[in-house]
Amino acid sequence: MRRYGIPTPAEGLATSQDEVVSLVKKIGTPVAMKIVSPDILHKTDAGGVVVGVDSEADAKDAYEKIIANAKKYDASATITGVQVQQMVGGGQEVIIGSVTDPTFGKVVAFGLGGVLVEVLKDITFRLAPLDRNEARSMVDGIKAAEVLQGARGAEPVDREALADVIQQVAALVTDFPEISEFDLNPVFATAEGACAADIRILLDDGEVTEPDRYSQQDILQVMNRMMNPRSVAVVGASAEDGKIGNSVMKNLQNGGFAGGIYPINPKATEILGYKAYPSITDVPGEIDVAIFTVPAKFVLAAIAECGAKGVSTAVLIPSGFAETGNVELQEEVVAAAKQHGVRLLGPNIYGYYYTPQNLCATFCTPYDVRGGVALTSQSGGIGMAILGYSRTTKMGVSAIVGLGNKSDIDEDDLLTYFEQDENTQCVAMHLEDLKDGKAFVETAKRMTKKKPVVVLKAGRTALGARAASSHTGALAGDDKVYDDVLRQAGVIRAPGLNDMLDYARGLPLMPTPKGENVVIITGAGGSGVLLSDACVEAGLSLMDIPPDLDEEFRRYIPPFGASGNPIDITGGEPPSTYEATIRLGLEDPRIHALILGYWHTIVTPPMVFAELTARVVNEARAKGIDKPVVASLAGDTEVEKASDYLFEHRIIAHPYTTERPVAVLGAKYRWARAAGLL
Amino acid sequence: MRRYGIPTPAEGLATSQDEVVSLVKKIGTPVAMKIVSPDILHKTDAGGVVVGVDSEADAKDAYEKIIANAKKYDASATITGVQVQQMVGGGQEVIIGSVTDPTFGKVVAFGLGGVLVEVLKDITFRLAPLDRNEARSMVDGIKAAEVLQGARGAEPVDREALADVIQQVAALVTDFPEISEFDLNPVFATAEGACAADIRILLDDGEVTEPDRYSQQDILQVMNRMMNPRSVAVVGASAEDGKIGNSVMKNLQNGGFAGGIYPINPKATEILGYKAYPSITDVPGEIDVAIFTVPAKFVLAAIAECGAKGVSTAVLIPSGFAETGNVELQEEVVAAAKQHGVRLLGPNIYGYYYTPQNLCATFCTPYDVRGGVALTSQSGGIGMAILGYSRTTKMGVSAIVGLGNKSDIDEDDLLTYFEQDENTQCVAMHLEDLKDGKAFVETAKRMTKKKPVVVLKAGRTALGARAASSHTGALAGDDKVYDDVLRQAGVIRAPGLNDMLDYARGLPLMPTPKGENVVIITGAGGSGVLLSDACVEAGLSLMDIPPDLDEEFRRYIPPFGASGNPIDITGGEPPSTYEATIRLGLEDPRIHALILGYWHTIVTPPMVFAELTARVVNEARAKGIDKPVVASLAGDTEVEKASDYLFEHRIIAHPYTTERPVAVLGAKYRWARAAGLL
Repeated sequence: MRRYGIPTPAEGLATSQDEVVSLVKKIGTPVAMKIVSPDILHKTDAGGVVVGVDSEADAKDAYEKIIANAKKYDASATITGVQVQQMVGGGQEVIIGSVTDPTFGKVVAFGLGGVLVEVLKDITFRLAPLDRNEARSMVDGIKAAEVLQGARGAEPVDREALADVIQQVAALVTDFPEISEFDLNPVFATAEGACAADIRILLDDGEVTEPDRYSQQDILQVMNRMMNPRSVAVVGASAEDGKIGNSVMKNLQNGGFAGGIYPINPKATEILGYKAYPSITDVPGEIDVAIFTVPAKFVLAAIAECGAKGVSTAVLIPSGFAETGNVELQEEVVAAAKQHGVRLLGPNIYGYYYTPQNLCATFCTPYDVRGGVALTSQSGGIGMAILGYSRTTKMGVSAIVGLGNKSDIDEDDLLTYFEQDENTQCVAMHLEDLKDGKAFVETAKRMTKKKPVVVLKAGRTALGARAASSHTGALAGDDKVYDDVLRQAGVIRAPGLNDMLDYARGLPLMPTPKGENVVIITGAGGSGVLLSDACVEAGLSLMDIPPDLDEEFRRYIPPFGASGNPIDITGGEPPSTYEATIRLGLEDPRIHALILGYWHTIVTPPMVFAELTARVVNEARAKGIDKPVVASLAGDTEVEKASDYLFEHRIIAHPYTTERPVAVLGAKYRWARAAGLL
Repeated sequence: MRRYGIPTPAEGLATSQDEVVSLVKKIGTPVAMKIVSPDILHKTDAGGVVVGVDSEADAKDAYEKIIANAKKYDASATITGVQVQQMVGGGQEVIIGSVTDPTFGKVVAFGLGGVLVEVLKDITFRLAPLDRNEARSMVDGIKAAEVLQGARGAEPVDREALADVIQQVAALVTDFPEISEFDLNPVFATAEGACAADIRILLDDGEVTEPDRYSQQDILQVMNRMMNPRSVAVVGASAEDGKIGNSVMKNLQNGGFAGGIYPINPKATEILGYKAYPSITDVPGEIDVAIFTVPAKFVLAAIAECGAKGVSTAVLIPSGFAETGNVELQEEVVAAAKQHGVRLLGPNIYGYYYTPQNLCATFCTPYDVRGGVALTSQSGGIGMAILGYSRTTKMGVSAIVGLGNKSDIDEDDLLTYFEQDENTQCVAMHLEDLKDGKAFVETAKRMTKKKPVVVLKAGRTALGARAASSHTGALAGDDKVYDDVLRQAGVIRAPGLNDMLDYARGLPLMPTPKGENVVIITGAGGSGVLLSDACVEAGLSLMDIPPDLDEEFRRYIPPFGASGNPIDITGGEPPSTYEATIRLGLEDPRIHALILGYWHTIVTPPMVFAELTARVVNEARAKGIDKPVVASLAGDTEVEKASDYLFEHRIIAHPYTTERPVAVLGAKYRWARAAGLL
């Protein structure tokens, strides 16, 4: 503790009344005093302990009494002296600890003591080590943070001192990986500082192994060849309809991939007009990617050939590996791939899409709407939902990648590519676990400074604290750790599949807001109230409209319309009222984002609203004003077409809901705040 | 407190050592002892107080000492005796209180003391008076309820004793309406009982007025005439396209209303083929409903004519009343209506629909898909969203009603009708406030025993505790009170507009589950995980599959498929696997509800899945087995058509989402539990 500067109760050894006095002066009262003698084990039995000593005079008396008692107890005992120790207590009890998470490694925990942490699980986690701001965010990040800030008239505690202890604990467990669990419980937090009164350390006697990692450069090289291949081979290509090897060939062809396409099939000479080769090694020229459509049992042999041919990535579509219990076969394939210098995507996947290259290396149908979001999924089913949602909403996509069993290539490889890919402005990932949480967080932390990363973490409610001996360990339910660590990495977590898809569709279309002032302009008072609810839910700040701006808005709306925020222009208004108020909202630099509530009326029909809104927003963009604008459309079915039209003009619009457009804006804000852009 | 049986510290007067001993025997230790003398005001100064008396012997000594001290202090003082009082403390401090809510009247509050209630707002409310089960639900309804049940190895407190105090406080504040706020803080809860150690009562000197109420029979009579009118008049009917009075006429005609339709317009002789009358009093025969499409300023005069004609309800479409600041005009209209025996719907509404009568008394477009849900909205914008969503999803609707300013008819009038309306199986209401919360709760409590009521309460996050002198008062933020009281009434609260619409669409189609055992059958492992997450979120219990049932399921799925729950049939399976497992899920009586996760494959395309599922479910229904079945469809856009097909067969199905179908099932369960059906 001393080495890491973690305050513990002050103490010292006194061998005289004078030394007692000088220790008490140094430590302050109250103190506890204890006999120190190699011959006296049971100090209390020997009358060798006095607690609650409140003054120098009492301390001198206690010293005499303890020495006398000790001598009485055992006249022959060697008496080293009397330990004088600070008695800590008071203030607020907190717990600071660390646990070794199976995914992330060392994570630090912080919570208030007692019922709050035990019954209400009010605890927060971060990946170690921590910088000071991260440590501070823990102190302020528990639900009951107010207690430390001086709730109920109490004196605020020294939160910097707590942040310091947290940071030091993080450093300590990082330096000593063999510490598997670590508890400071309680730590007494007062206005003057923090003091750890008890400590418990558990060591892991097993070997600590770090997963294999590739350098960023190596990853980029492989990913570049995978996403922008000059040529691809289809191992198991087939001319027969309904075969996976046929679907993949068709999709490459129909998708419009311009590079070389080489069907590999020993029984064919030509497939879909492409010359077929018996083995990948027979293909003339280089091959970047080999797409495997053969059954699992034929994969191993072909991997060696891929290695010989210098293939960079083998895309393993077949199932029949670890997911069906065939762990051994998967391990063999992974070992062979490693030996031959081939990286693996999959197995057990639908393949992948990269629209900038018209590359549809998948057995699903082609997808060609280019745009800024890259999506990945661990599960094939979720991948299909991504594809269907993309198609029905015409979502602009750069990539869709199946990760399946993640035997090799995983989320941080892809993030490393998307980080520098100028075709990708946002990444959305469905995942059930992370092979190497630490590498993911490292990459995500870098990436989220530039582009939003959305994660749908499945299995989030399948908690259950793991069996653990320490307090912190028992509190570290998987999901809470995931939640906090992903947030620490700047990742936006989507609460559900639909949310992930909504965020993925909307985020790349939306500029980054320049400030926190959100304004609602609505034609329906009822929508205004629900939109306000949604803003609070999404962590958005409704701007406090200054009087001059209020006056300006009021120029355009009926006298009984509500100014303030939401600005209720009332329901019967013509297009010009929407137009004037939206323009004002865009042009006033104090406003940073707009939420529009449209109400279907005969006076302003849905498409009229959509067209005027897109026009006004585009005019502002032409003048260099680009603010996030989202819209909720309440009306008859024509509002669906109007919402689509708005989306085409980069305005996030949803019919029949006040929550969804606001949630997407909220996600953009969460990202911008985490990236330090606000 | 005594009158209501609320325990307070025991006490008694002793005039001798013997009496002291018998009091201590009765009260138990520790006790506090205090001089009782009309001449000694400052008891402590007189040495007349001893606290923490731990034994009978000490109590006798203390008695002597107090008497002696008192005599020494004032030899001439009359000494009445010594008060012996129980010293309470220990156990768990809780707060039990009551506040007068502006919407609901007397509500009771319960929470743990200290930081939990103050910082984390862990408090629960119920409308007074309470039955014992409601009181118990409060003790178990706070987030930190575990603390009272014996968390952290502590002894559980006597929760029955707490429920008793809560119930008595509810009775007390009901009996004395002049009590505006009431605090028992702290109440000490121990294993032995509960004891209120401090009390604070605030009286309201203003007059307590109850709102006007109609008898259930009167309401039903009016509502029956409104929903099933023999004839309607349109005041302000017009032949001119684009006028509201024209739209309403067209909708009545095109909607197919079979009763009499009478346009009222002094300047016309005929409108849309109907004979027009200058005044409603000129119409021959009876008129049940008058639909007003005239400007606000003409309403008052026509109300009197409605009264003369015996019109039961005036439907006030026009705006220009309280919502534009014209409160006075609205009050005049209300007073006139009351005087003339006419009930009012609106003003400031789109009108209303009642599909069993083909009645479209609205300026919006007609709606004719009949079905089991009645929807109401306070806001016109939300009404339009209801209409659009209904049309696009072909939602089966019995009624859509605009309530607008709610100058007269409100939610509990409508509930009273829908409760006994055999065309309505479920009610969904958007509301921003309740005119008479007590009447609403009374009606809803009755109604929800039979049919689900969904409420979207807007303004839920615009909290802010109201200014109050008592602790309880300060904690009674509007929304928390709404939330708890609506739940107490058995109402399902929808978190957002989309959720309300989803629930409205799904609930009437779904049978009531007969038990809590929910089973997930999925073709995509990834969906299975997300569906499990959604189940936890929705408060559903995934059934623990017994071994024999597990074995049965395993007969149909590949060896590497996951049995247990979710049952993962794996992705490549043919229709027969879906069919066999779904049939088993339906036919085994231990399973009470099914969640299906479909994964789009070539082997089992979307419509094949939809058709087989509908067929198997319908076969079971034909055998008398009707369980809730919901489905999440992950796949390409064909899953949209498949979802619609499933909906048509009363299977709640949504594409691209795992959350929405499960949330609807969760809503059904919440209702069934509250209605005591599970």
